Amino acid sequence: MPAYTAPIRDTKFVLEEIVKLERHGNLPGFADAGPDTVQAILEEGGKFVEGVLFPLNHSGDKEGCMRAEDGSVTTPKGFKDAYRQFVEGGWGTLGAPAEYGGQGLPHAVSMAFEEYMCAGNMAFAMYPGLTHGAIAAINVRGSDTQKQTYLPKMIEGTWTGTMNLTEPHCGTDLGLIRTKAKDKGDGSYAITGTKIFISAGEHDMAENIIHLVLAKREGAPDNVKGISLFVVPKVLVNTDGSLGERNGVSCGSIEEKMGIHGNATCVMNYDEATGYLVGEPERGLEAMFIMMNAARLGVGVQGLGQAEIAYQNAVSYALDRRQGRALTGAKDEEAKADPIIVHPDVRRMLMDARAFTEGARALTLWAALQIDLSHSAATEEEREAADDVVGLLTPVIKGYFTDKGFETAVNAQQVYGGHGYVQEWGMEQYVRDARIAQIYEGTNGIQAMDLVGRKLGRKGGKALMQFAALVNEEIETAKADEALQPLAEKLEKAGGELQAATMWLMQNGMANPNNAGAGAAPYMHMMGIVSLGLMWLKMARAAQSHLANGAAGDSFYEAKLVTARYYMDRFLPDVGALRRKLESGAETMMALPAESFART
Amino acid sequence: MPAYTAPIRDTKFVLEEIVKLERHGNLPGFADAGPDTVQAILEEGGKFVEGVLFPLNHSGDKEGCMRAEDGSVTTPKGFKDAYRQFVEGGWGTLGAPAEYGGQGLPHAVSMAFEEYMCAGNMAFAMYPGLTHGAIAAINVRGSDTQKQTYLPKMIEGTWTGTMNLTEPHCGTDLGLIRTKAKDKGDGSYAITGTKIFISAGEHDMAENIIHLVLAKREGAPDNVKGISLFVVPKVLVNTDGSLGERNGVSCGSIEEKMGIHGNATCVMNYDEATGYLVGEPERGLEAMFIMMNAARLGVGVQGLGQAEIAYQNAVSYALDRRQGRALTGAKDEEAKADPIIVHPDVRRMLMDARAFTEGARALTLWAALQIDLSHSAATEEEREAADDVVGLLTPVIKGYFTDKGFETAVNAQQVYGGHGYVQEWGMEQYVRDARIAQIYEGTNGIQAMDLVGRKLGRKGGKALMQFAALVNEEIETAKADEALQPLAEKLEKAGGELQAATMWLMQNGMANPNNAGAGAAPYMHMMGIVSLGLMWLKMARAAQSHLANGAAGDSFYEAKLVTARYYMDRFLPDVGALRRKLESGAETMMALPAESFART
Repeated sequence: MPAYTAPIRDTKFVLEEIVKLERHGNLPGFADAGPDTVQAILEEGGKFVEGVLFPLNHSGDKEGCMRAEDGSVTTPKGFKDAYRQFVEGGWGTLGAPAEYGGQGLPHAVSMAFEEYMCAGNMAFAMYPGLTHGAIAAINVRGSDTQKQTYLPKMIEGTWTGTMNLTEPHCGTDLGLIRTKAKDKGDGSYAITGTKIFISAGEHDMAENIIHLVLAKREGAPDNVKGISLFVVPKVLVNTDGSLGERNGVSCGSIEEKMGIHGNATCVMNYDEATGYLVGEPERGLEAMFIMMNAARLGVGVQGLGQAEIAYQNAVSYALDRRQGRALTGAKDEEAKADPIIVHPDVRRMLMDARAFTEGARALTLWAALQIDLSHSAATEEEREAADDVVGLLTPVIKGYFTDKGFETAVNAQQVYGGHGYVQEWGMEQYVRDARIAQIYEGTNGIQAMDLVGRKLGRKGGKALMQFAALVNEEIETAKADEALQPLAEKLEKAGGELQAATMWLMQNGMANPNNAGAGAAPYMHMMGIVSLGLMWLKMARAAQSHLANGAAGDSFYEAKLVTARYYMDRFLPDVGALRRKLESGAETMMALPAESFART
Repeated sequence: MPAYTAPIRDTKFVLEEIVKLERHGNLPGFADAGPDTVQAILEEGGKFVEGVLFPLNHSGDKEGCMRAEDGSVTTPKGFKDAYRQFVEGGWGTLGAPAEYGGQGLPHAVSMAFEEYMCAGNMAFAMYPGLTHGAIAAINVRGSDTQKQTYLPKMIEGTWTGTMNLTEPHCGTDLGLIRTKAKDKGDGSYAITGTKIFISAGEHDMAENIIHLVLAKREGAPDNVKGISLFVVPKVLVNTDGSLGERNGVSCGSIEEKMGIHGNATCVMNYDEATGYLVGEPERGLEAMFIMMNAARLGVGVQGLGQAEIAYQNAVSYALDRRQGRALTGAKDEEAKADPIIVHPDVRRMLMDARAFTEGARALTLWAALQIDLSHSAATEEEREAADDVVGLLTPVIKGYFTDKGFETAVNAQQVYGGHGYVQEWGMEQYVRDARIAQIYEGTNGIQAMDLVGRKLGRKGGKALMQFAALVNEEIETAKADEALQPLAEKLEKAGGELQAATMWLMQNGMANPNNAGAGAAPYMHMMGIVSLGLMWLKMARAAQSHLANGAAGDSFYEAKLVTARYYMDRFLPDVGALRRKLESGAETMMALPAESFART
């Protein structure tokens, strides 16, 4: 009964009107991404997700992954064949570097496809998703030999990748890790330890699995400064590139989880496994952040994807299910009841979902453009500016998108009433799957602290100032158009609240860092809401321009304008409330002695 | 690993300081509820939940209910024996009418125990919970014979009860129901039809199950005015009260659900089952609302209970798990990391949970007092006033408590990081279980419409005016105390926002009912936040008074004051944002044509 349609028209709108792909022909790969090519990729990619991945979403959830006695893991029925098609279709190569077999297309194009995958089958999308992060780390920090050994196969997809950070006693605080790396004197290390929560740690879809593992070398400081990154292939790779012996790494068990059952979440045991240092020793944390930042954007897109599929199904149900009458009088007199989409409270949940998903899609693809600009813009200044914006927005996209994505999935489930709670209708799976995105790759609390504690103050607050300038510029442009002026003024007010909150944090976070910690979550949400507001103003301007220039009556653009107005009315007010919470500071939050929390 | 402790000290505080049981000795049953008796009930009840029900919570979720070929249903291991202990302990009789074997204790006492059950094992608690609703309907609308036939056994607990409303094609819109009642001419009816989502519809814990079923009599109007209520026992009862033949009602299947697996959610097939009219024909909706209102308060308490148990476990984890260092410097230098309760963002989630659960507990028990006052206060005026307040608060308690209860469970799960997502730690079950409470007994959207469309305008808005007077009175009293004045002023501001929103609804909801529909959910949340604000002001005043009068240094009262301040700072700001959303009206919400919602 559930269904999925890749939102191609909306993606194209964003790529053309917000990202403006054609204006960046100077960037590598962009010249190959003309409108026809992009259209073909989105359509073929959409078909692949709709026809191959989505049909395995519910069955994959029901069946889950199975670990056998020998440590091998079987993915749900159909996953292996779907992955073969994924590899054959070259779907993992879209945005990957051309020198290792990738297509080198704009990140905005590969991210658009990534969204479709995360919507259609999030558990499946994680297998290639984690590979992307591992590719990024090897590409930036690996030696030439490592790049040549691993990247072509990983980009092709015949090998997948993982990130091994967490251990039973530590997740967020990686300084505590116990996994050891012993120098074998032949350029390799013997890695020993236990890693948990390793997504796609073991499975049956690829010839090899390339684990990137954080460990401490012998004699390294026993804290965060002693961490190195190692590449540990499941099957050792001979110098000619052929597969050699099985390495000393195995899956000890798989977790029983709330959701994403189609993805194997493994306990990985390293028993003197052969590993190779990636980059410099004791610089593992930096290398990790390369893959982590790529992964965080991907997780944000999961929040968007799950919100999108939940929204689409809620719409179908709301159009089909008949209960009660419109408050303003029967809409369908012939029938005994109207479809529930006539009810304002159902509309509220659907409009919230539209406003979030379309805004988030725009911000995702716009941020993807900034990634390409950060690598390849013409001047160092432009590259730095783009890099700063990506750094600033990464925790916002991860944290805000997944919080809001989960909320959207919950609301979409609510549209179904009791049918939303039973497995047969599929809605409860979206809620369970979406939930993990708020937790992994750094909980959303960690994202908020990354934003407030690290990104905000970097280079004297330059990134935020740049971002604020972008917002203000868009507001000024929009104000000049009478039709857009009321929207611009509302965003201006919200922007002012954000600015005031920033000032408050600057002044009070220094004096007492707990004030920054206590305000971090509200601030991250404020940033998220204002960022989507910027996108909505841009989208409204584009739609308005089309409507004024020959597209009058085009329901797509009309819906954009309505949804933009809805966004300003229904999302922005939270910015003021969040500011007031933030400005209440840490005092009452931290006042209770720890022992007062338990009940008696 | 999960644990539960009945929050007896907090319950006692509310019963003594907010409900003030001892001041209502004139009400029936209250004289029997002296402090020692109440203490004994809470302690024994707490022990029963902690020692018998809670240990079955996780196993019951894993195992679920099983339906056999013959339609019989087996509850999870241990449930049957636990239910036997529930009956033997007389736990179903606490607040039930004395004339049918109940103890006739104040509702506030039975509701306190109800909360413990809903926390310790929500799926189990639903079996007696639904029985309560059925008892209420029979007690108010049933004939003397029906009361004598059913009530003693149901109150004792040897028989349980159900509510049969929903059908495959209709839930909210009961006018559409198709179940038929054919007059057999002997004082009974033959009931035929299919009901779905029937909680506790079939199980193995009781001798008999008394179904209350909505159906249409032959010739009755085919709409909401044609509905009658029937009592349909699973096993027919002979005139001497002994059990007779099996009736023509059976469980056709049980639903696979997101949660509450320990409760059997049944499709019930009625095949010329013998039923008896309860109350007058074609007045079924009114009778239904009697059990529905009782059930709605019970569902609100589920929201509170799940929030409470999730909070308690999050506290344990936050005290135990060590990651990172306090922002203000290491708290435990001896160890390699501090317990995560030092981190503001973890505190934020715990303090939010405290502020919600303690406020909700106070409002629940205070509302329970109003129920007793509505039946037994000295004057008609007092009875009516109490009844109005209960009517006003019922949708708020159901809707706000369950929305916030779910959010609290999600936040508590978040405290666990990755461990919150795996089944072994138990947190994800609270989230899955809590989710249903937002949906059943009328979705929270329906609660909001009940509040705005029905309760607000009743008797010219009398109920709201009475409630507002209570809030204002408390504010004025608190203002006189310098220590409480800042709290009172914050609540006053929020109360002003609520009043303004009410005015806006009055003015704009008439002109266009969609404005009322579009503002219903925000309004319900505003009411919820202000209602808990009232409770927090009352609690702060009581705590302040104890601290000033000899209890200085008592950490319980000190925590109350801190949490009251936290509530005012961190919950009330949403009232202003919700008002702005509400006042944006229905225009953008309703503007899109239905066909514009689907993606292309």
